[in-house]
Amino acid sequence: MATQSSAAAVRLQCRSEKHTENTVGLAPGYVQCNLMVLPIEYAADFISLCERNPVPFALLATSRTTGDPHTLSDTRLIKAGAESGAGDSAVPLLDLRTDLPRYNVYSCGSLIDTPNNVKDYWTESHTAFIMGCSFSFDSALVAAGLPPRHVEAGCNVTMYTTTYKLHPAGIFTEGTMVVSMRPYKESDIPRVRAITGRFSRTHGEPVDWGWDALERLGIKNLEKPDFGDVVGVRREEGEVPVFWGCGATPSLVIKLAGDKIEGHVITHIPGFSLLVDMKDDEV
Amino acid sequence: MATQSSAAAVRLQCRSEKHTENTVGLAPGYVQCNLMVLPIEYAADFISLCERNPVPFALLATSRTTGDPHTLSDTRLIKAGAESGAGDSAVPLLDLRTDLPRYNVYSCGSLIDTPNNVKDYWTESHTAFIMGCSFSFDSALVAAGLPPRHVEAGCNVTMYTTTYKLHPAGIFTEGTMVVSMRPYKESDIPRVRAITGRFSRTHGEPVDWGWDALERLGIKNLEKPDFGDVVGVRREEGEVPVFWGCGATPSLVIKLAGDKIEGHVITHIPGFSLLVDMKDDEV
Repeated sequence: MATQSSAAAVRLQCRSEKHTENTVGLAPGYVQCNLMVLPIEYAADFISLCERNPVPFALLATSRTTGDPHTLSDTRLIKAGAESGAGDSAVPLLDLRTDLPRYNVYSCGSLIDTPNNVKDYWTESHTAFIMGCSFSFDSALVAAGLPPRHVEAGCNVTMYTTTYKLHPAGIFTEGTMVVSMRPYKESDIPRVRAITGRFSRTHGEPVDWGWDALERLGIKNLEKPDFGDVVGVRREEGEVPVFWGCGATPSLVIKLAGDKIEGHVITHIPGFSLLVDMKDDEV
Repeated sequence: MATQSSAAAVRLQCRSEKHTENTVGLAPGYVQCNLMVLPIEYAADFISLCERNPVPFALLATSRTTGDPHTLSDTRLIKAGAESGAGDSAVPLLDLRTDLPRYNVYSCGSLIDTPNNVKDYWTESHTAFIMGCSFSFDSALVAAGLPPRHVEAGCNVTMYTTTYKLHPAGIFTEGTMVVSMRPYKESDIPRVRAITGRFSRTHGEPVDWGWDALERLGIKNLEKPDFGDVVGVRREEGEVPVFWGCGATPSLVIKLAGDKIEGHVITHIPGFSLLVDMKDDEV
């Protein structure tokens, strides 16, 4: 499938299952979002978890009405009359059950299915949480002449689970922060902090940096990330690891909640995101 | 000075320097606030710090206009026509330079003065941050039949610095969370979490609890708090320590910022708070 110029077009391609692969590089400049769908009885606790841990939980919007996969609390994310012609009233602009290429479905904390749509799992009691991701600031880093190495290498970002305990909220008492890592020269860190700090709704500036940070975050081996691909940190060239809060944290918390959650939990698959009609620089 | 029924009256008593002692027990039911006043050039970083660490930084409002000590961004905090007659147009409802009994003034991270008003330090470039405090949920715990021990004992709450690193923001790169501690029976923790969790804007539910939490938070000796008074935890009766994010955190961060801040920083003194016209249950 060719690179799309429009986020709405990508959603429709996913809906018709013409596109079932990852969304890396699609609709450049448009925000790619992480998805979490929970039965409504856990929504208040999950919102509280996001509010108390905003750095890894970049909550952008929720379902406007429980069970309705078509509308979001922040109307700027899905816009009528986007270029694709998706404004046609017979065709919904958004259907969260179908508009991602593929989904993870959990039951009692275990992954049970990875379907291309979740029509069989979505119920009237499900409510969605749309979260931003660091793809948004990666573009800004590229534009500033500070491209993240994983972008240059065309691979996934490097991610680690840390020992940094999340602030508990309701049933979500277990879990630590997942971080993404990008190597930078120490002298570039002030600019890297300033550029990514502007993206306060999608993880913002780094949570820690430097070789000392490994001990503070409880990362034992930089060569063995917990998720994503390995990119080298060139210590001899003055590079240090720089860490950001990461959107892989919510899925970890859901797994750890285990059988405290009755009913199915639906999430995006890392790299298989929801494209929305908001531009990266509008976040 | 007798217990006041009105927050506005306490402000006026402070303004006229008739009241210069702590505000514990004054204007019961009204929200007592922590104060941070910074030169405007550090305001964006401080707001980012609050947004990234909302559990210890319970930001309720800011100055509406830089340099103006009379108006706040959230107009619900200061209400015209409060019972005291302070609605008289000649008498401002609020003057942040005078309406606390006493202040801490810092220069380059060092405490340099503890005056009863800060008219000599406040400049046109100063901007204020009003933060909530756990007094608000202490009242709710008392009402639920779960009075915190320091309330029963009539002393200050027990506070500890932890090893829990804050998420950095701009110039504020150094600092760990300060926590307050209240002992509770393990069986009461679900209720204690639910009651304080409702106060999401003033620290919310506990960040950790149980004897294991001491190691996670890096607290070496429960008998030696860093701030406040000691109250015993009766282990033999099944009590465990329960920890909340604490409003003493901002002052610690200001001290650690040291000479990165040019100009005076003004804060409340713990226990010497700003009374606002909002009730605890309205937060």
